[in-house]
Amino acid sequence: MSEIPKAPIARIIKEAGAERVSEDAKAELAAYVEEIARNVAKEATQVAKIAKRKTIKADDIKLAIKNL
Amino acid sequence: MSEIPKAPIARIIKEAGAERVSEDAKAELAAYVEEIARNVAKEATQVAKIAKRKTIKADDIKLAIKNL
Repeated sequence: MSEIPKAPIARIIKEAGAERVSEDAKAELAAYVEEIARNVAKEATQVAKIAKRKTIKADDIKLAIKNL
Repeated sequence: MSEIPKAPIARIIKEAGAERVSEDAKAELAAYVEEIARNVAKEATQVAKIAKRKTIKADDIKLAIKNL
């Protein structure tokens, strides 16, 4: 499933100094960061599960990023 | 600057199996993927500059991801 919208990704690329950005480039970067987000989210969910919590907290995300 | 919205990040975390997600957790993951997106975008802009192109293409993003 595709969740991350292309508009903010396009702004990030422009803010990096790009004059123009192809639609494919926006899609490519959006897909890349979405994959990373899904991997971190999976790991964070495991971390919270082990801690027997139903709520994902910022520390779960931080630990997940460290673990990956 | 903060570009990536928290709503799609929250959906990604829920799709990973989380029951509830704290606001701080959403903000943490959004900030993490935004930082990655900015780093890739900077590298891709350099790649396109070297190739004397004003438009960032998907291949620039792919090469930037490889380079980082």
